[in-house]
Amino acid sequence: MFRAVTSASAALGPQAAGWVRTMASHQLLVAPPEVLLKPLSVPNRLLLGPGPSNVAPRVLAAGGLQMIGHMHKEMYQIMDEIKQGIQYLFQTRNRLTLAISGSGHAALEAALMSVLEPGDSFLVGVNGLWGQRAAEIGERVGARTHPMIKDPGGYYTLKEVEEGLAKHKPVLLFLTQGESTSGILQPLEGYGELCHRYQCLFLVDTVASLGGIPIHMDQQGIDILYSGAQKVLNAPPGTALISFSDKARNKIYSRKTKPFSFYLDIKLLGNFWGCDDEPRMYHHTTPVLGLYSLRESLALVAEEGLENCWRRHRETTAYLQGRLQELGLQLFVKDPALRLPTVTTVAVPAGYDWRDIVNYLIDHFSIEITGGLGPSIGKVLRIGLLGHNATRENVDRVTEALKEALQRCPRNKL
Amino acid sequence: MFRAVTSASAALGPQAAGWVRTMASHQLLVAPPEVLLKPLSVPNRLLLGPGPSNVAPRVLAAGGLQMIGHMHKEMYQIMDEIKQGIQYLFQTRNRLTLAISGSGHAALEAALMSVLEPGDSFLVGVNGLWGQRAAEIGERVGARTHPMIKDPGGYYTLKEVEEGLAKHKPVLLFLTQGESTSGILQPLEGYGELCHRYQCLFLVDTVASLGGIPIHMDQQGIDILYSGAQKVLNAPPGTALISFSDKARNKIYSRKTKPFSFYLDIKLLGNFWGCDDEPRMYHHTTPVLGLYSLRESLALVAEEGLENCWRRHRETTAYLQGRLQELGLQLFVKDPALRLPTVTTVAVPAGYDWRDIVNYLIDHFSIEITGGLGPSIGKVLRIGLLGHNATRENVDRVTEALKEALQRCPRNKL
Repeated sequence: MFRAVTSASAALGPQAAGWVRTMASHQLLVAPPEVLLKPLSVPNRLLLGPGPSNVAPRVLAAGGLQMIGHMHKEMYQIMDEIKQGIQYLFQTRNRLTLAISGSGHAALEAALMSVLEPGDSFLVGVNGLWGQRAAEIGERVGARTHPMIKDPGGYYTLKEVEEGLAKHKPVLLFLTQGESTSGILQPLEGYGELCHRYQCLFLVDTVASLGGIPIHMDQQGIDILYSGAQKVLNAPPGTALISFSDKARNKIYSRKTKPFSFYLDIKLLGNFWGCDDEPRMYHHTTPVLGLYSLRESLALVAEEGLENCWRRHRETTAYLQGRLQELGLQLFVKDPALRLPTVTTVAVPAGYDWRDIVNYLIDHFSIEITGGLGPSIGKVLRIGLLGHNATRENVDRVTEALKEALQRCPRNKL
Repeated sequence: MFRAVTSASAALGPQAAGWVRTMASHQLLVAPPEVLLKPLSVPNRLLLGPGPSNVAPRVLAAGGLQMIGHMHKEMYQIMDEIKQGIQYLFQTRNRLTLAISGSGHAALEAALMSVLEPGDSFLVGVNGLWGQRAAEIGERVGARTHPMIKDPGGYYTLKEVEEGLAKHKPVLLFLTQGESTSGILQPLEGYGELCHRYQCLFLVDTVASLGGIPIHMDQQGIDILYSGAQKVLNAPPGTALISFSDKARNKIYSRKTKPFSFYLDIKLLGNFWGCDDEPRMYHHTTPVLGLYSLRESLALVAEEGLENCWRRHRETTAYLQGRLQELGLQLFVKDPALRLPTVTTVAVPAGYDWRDIVNYLIDHFSIEITGGLGPSIGKVLRIGLLGHNATRENVDRVTEALKEALQRCPRNKL
């Protein structure tokens, strides 16, 4: 039964009367923070690490447009445009395609939370931080998680994957196309077909690779694909892209248990994004301005054309790698065919502390490059050429800066 | 063992060679979407629903500043300023205070995922949609969830809560201060103390109320408090505010199981936000531009002063409620002391379809007000005066528009 509060005195009651009295008697214990009374200022940086990258001017402008409601029809139109943009970038016709209101990591978690049920077998390629994360979440949600552990720089052959599939009979396999912590590119051709022969779904992380290297979700038999906004797309972090094949959708829709997360429940999100035949139901307040930006970043790739975008990353990164070798630096991934065309890893040059080099570039050139992450910490320097940052001019800037850093930073300190 | 890939041929292998060959042979199956080749445009709207509200100009400008890295020292400084701002708005000295990279709903989920373990008893005030959500998540994570169900417009007395505490011995009680779906204000004085007498933690949702009405987290014995960015704060949706008392922190730190979510794991997030004594570890890429905006929105409240901000909302909403009654409209919450000073609910006037009124205001005035949500759908119209939207000028605009809508919309249609 639904009714309004009809009697003021009955509704108020002794507690509420007391509350009104007492509330007024509290004093403020915490004063306005001094630091907030000063203006906000941020430095201007060229972000040539593994991401986030600099936001493209048109994307930044889109994020500065005024708010509309998350359920206004104009917003649904923008969401539909985003869906089409993701379908283009992923090369898929999957209906269950949408953006997640969170980072790339949230998209991974949405996939695992929605697909895996407790007790499901889950096979994970762990050749860097992202596989470690996938395995960690698999364990948290109660899947029987089977990590295939490799040193950073390793990738998975079809034979290795087939052994894992035969042994563990997983419902899901996770691989990272662009393992940004080591700079390795995971081959994807034939893996989807192989998984399907073993009744296994195929999940691929393309956070650090999407837009920089070909992916063909449907033709490669990938069941779940996700990526982030803040890499090649040059959108601000805070949204992520994800898509599910019919096979993956069926697994989600035939769950026996609800996913632990409501926020990342793909069935509910799919409804809100208009991916089913039901009326859209309110789910959460989406990051409206972040979605404007994401829409615009997808539009930029659509205008350039995917193949042109791939070529630009390949050529610019090849130019970078040549210049780095001219400086006497060693690329961490020896085989050119296995190097990411987005994030390049360089072995930390002998005798240097990697922190000195990274700090020198920030302090003297306002250029960000980074050290390793997770298992690659202390082993590599990472240089990203992502989206509109992937230009020969930026390669020249960063290599000149590195040249000076190598001359000025202390050697044989370690 | 960590090693670089040293042999090109060994690393490449037959699969990779095949992959390089095959990859080039795929054709693009999905063309660039036509809709993305048109410019993005969004209408200018006065958002006087229950949120999101219009983004304040200074907040919008902050979100248009250029990106820096999520782990740059300047970003840590901004995060520290946000923490202090949240401490001020919540009136707390809790060290475990931070922003969540998601909507207000994500903050609720972070709280429940991090505090509740399977089998824990969880008591929930369900007098609208937000309590329904809390109960739903409680069930998803395996807590023994005990909803106290009330019709929209109801609130919980100390006596009712004490009965629930005595009967269910919960580890956690959830109440919503500002139930925006019905417009009711939940009294909070004495509830924290009562909970602690029963060894229960006290969790309060202030998404629709923070900044518009007093809250004194520490003095009111609230253990977990959260709110959103897109209401009184006038920041874009996509970040949320949360804080934990030492009692709540201890419950989280003494868990026997890991939370199901890694993305919303408060222990890990607390570390990344510098809330413990450990070095900050990378967790996820935070929404950098959203955090700029959040910082600026907190600065605006710090400049105005909390007490002034509370008074402005109280006075402007009282003015609105008077004008609505002059139009012959009935306020859904009869007792003035129990009406939210942020979101006002009006009973749908007899004979009208609420959709006609809402659409009339959008179509003729570009003003958003909304109907009900969840259990209040079809029963109420909702008008929000949130943050910089809380002005007498906006009250005049929306009441004039409503007056015209009531004259022009069909009556006795239902």
